[in-house]
Formats: sequence, structure tokens, C-alpha cells
Amino acid sequence: MPARPRSARDAAKIDLPLAQVRRYLEPGPVVLLTSAWNGERDVMTLGWHTVMEFTPALVGCVIARGNHSRTLIDASGACAINLPTRAMADTVAAIGNCSGTEVDKFQAFRLQTEPAEKIDAPLLRDCHAQFECRVHDRRLVDDYDFFVLEVLRARVAPRPHDPRTLHYQGDGRFMVAGDSIARRRFFTPDKL
Amino acid sequence: MPARPRSARDAAKIDLPLAQVRRYLEPGPVVLLTSAWNGERDVMTLGWHTVMEFTPALVGCVIARGNHSRTLIDASGACAINLPTRAMADTVAAIGNCSGTEVDKFQAFRLQTEPAEKIDAPLLRDCHAQFECRVHDRRLVDDYDFFVLEVLRARVAPRPHDPRTLHYQGDGRFMVAGDSIARRRFFTPDKL
Repeated sequence: MPARPRSARDAAKIDLPLAQVRRYLEPGPVVLLTSAWNGERDVMTLGWHTVMEFTPALVGCVIARGNHSRTLIDASGACAINLPTRAMADTVAAIGNCSGTEVDKFQAFRLQTEPAEKIDAPLLRDCHAQFECRVHDRRLVDDYDFFVLEVLRARVAPRPHDPRTLHYQGDGRFMVAGDSIARRRFFTPDKL
Repeated sequence: MPARPRSARDAAKIDLPLAQVRRYLEPGPVVLLTSAWNGERDVMTLGWHTVMEFTPALVGCVIARGNHSRTLIDASGACAINLPTRAMADTVAAIGNCSGTEVDKFQAFRLQTEPAEKIDAPLLRDCHAQFECRVHDRRLVDDYDFFVLEVLRARVAPRPHDPRTLHYQGDGRFMVAGDSIARRRFFTPDKL
């Protein structure tokens, strides 16, 4: 039996089909996007997002057309990003596998909501954090469904300090956030 | 002593300064960006990125101006995304805290490289995966330093299946990727 490789360096590398890049670069955390317009509301899962700026607090998100939420966000220009954790894994998976045009997901999954302050969208109480956002830049929407959002209000649970967020890996699997390690001694103050 | 809240829902929420949104939405994995131009080469850490499309394989990245790497990427129109894991935590932190204008980081941190195939940039052998990229869309570069990259070639180590990637949390701390959970039973085939 060959020795087990000790690191990525020891193991021979193989080609990865380009469409599977997501498996490594779609780190999550999966978030739940909530929105409302004209008496309708919806919630969808979303894994393709990145922070873009500290101040104003900008987040870029791919919100694919075809989602009922996309229609509501196009109309309202707003949405909330809610951060679920491991305890909500079943709900997160289920929300991502049905459509808001057919189901009231809030009712179907018994989602507890609370009102937002800066926008009109329900916030999810069971989530660790809630970020109220307004659409800031639509220049890449037509080509990539990519919205630049500005976070207007951010609410988080103070505990636990390190929430066990869910990071979708494809194939129905989620990586759950593990423990944290400190490397502060390597940092210059301006880089922390 | 008050009972410890059992979930984010039990704990009262507090306001979070908007500039700290990254603490929750900058999930990593931290990647190492390598580039080369005209006999120079550099490597930088990067945590703000998102997958944007399967085919072509598009990844959006914030590559801040001021980095030596940014100059090389602006000139060459190419870079490689390398995916480090826990074993490289010290190196990742150190790379992120010095400048390529002052140090040859490859020499300083004894980085083993191998040649790319589709672009001119050194790939990092010790990383779990390597993605060779070409700049695809610069429309948001002036306003947000946001580059849309197309992955032209992707190489990964077949083992371990779930690499212990590093996810920067701010304050010199990294979350290390934890175990995976399967929720395949909730998925419809087209959503996997």
C-alpha cells in the first residue's frame, strides 16, 4: 500500500473541470436573502458573494434571474442578507430546493421574522446575523446577474463569537465552519 | 449567572458597525494570488472573491491598488489563484504583511513554484489547488478594484477531499474549514 501523501504538495495533482471551480472557490457562508415587494415576500439561498469595500459597506452578490426573489429585488431595489448556522442546515437546504412562486417559504418552513428598519423586507430571527441592503450598482447585472449592494444596517448575535456557518461545496454537502487559529504575531497593525 | 443562550435566536442582537460586516461576510478561503510581468513576480493574499459563473468559469476578485501584484496584473492581464491550507497559515499571514516592492516573497518564504501553462505566472506547489486566470472584465476596476477573471486552467490535489482552508476573520484570526455534513436528501437533481 503506498504511503499516504502528507500534503497537497506530496499528492500528484489532477485536472479539474472548469465548471467545478466552485467546489473550491465558493466558500460560502451560504446566506439567506429575504426581500419583499407589493405585498409579496420571498427567501432564497445564495452562496456567491464577496465583500467589496469597508466604507461604504459594499457586498457583491450573484442573484440569478429566474428566482422569484430576483423579481422582488429588481422591483424594490433592496434585500436583507441573513446568516444561518449549522442548526438551520435542513432549512437552508430545503429553501434552496423550492421556488417562491409555488410556495410561501416562510410558512412552509415556519420561519420567524422581524421587521427591518432601513428597508422593506422580513429579517430571519433564527439567523446569526442580518444585513439590510440597498442595491448600489447594477452595471454588471445584465451580463452576470451581479449586484453591488450597500449594507445599511447590520445586526449580529454577540454569542457565539464564532458561529458555525455553512459553506456549500456542491453535491448536497456543506462544510461547517471549524475552529479559529490566531496568527496575530505576523500582522502589522494596519493589516489587522 | 444568566443561562447561556442556546442559539443566535435566544441571544439579544446588537448593532454591528458597518465596517465590520467583513467579519461575517468575508468567508475566505484566503487565496494567494501570483503574477508576473517583464521579469518581475509577486504573490499577495486575497480574501474578497466570489464565483460568478460556471461556464465560462468566472471569478470576481477585489485586487486593491497599491499592491505590487496589482501593477503586474494590470500590465499582464493575468494571475493565478492558489489555495493554501492550514499547514501554510504562518506563510499566508507573513505574505499578507509585507510588500513585493521591498521583498522577493518567493525567496523570503521559500515558496516552491512550478510554471503555469496558459499564462505567465508562477504557481505555488504547496497549495491545494491552482487556478490560472485571465482578466475578463474591467468595468468595475476603476470604482471598486473589482476584476472579473476567467479561469483557464484549474489544478487540484485529489487528496484530502476536503482541504482545511483558511478563512480570514479579521484581527489576525483565521477560521479553519471544519467537517462536512451531507444534506443531499433535500436536493432536487438540478440543484446539486
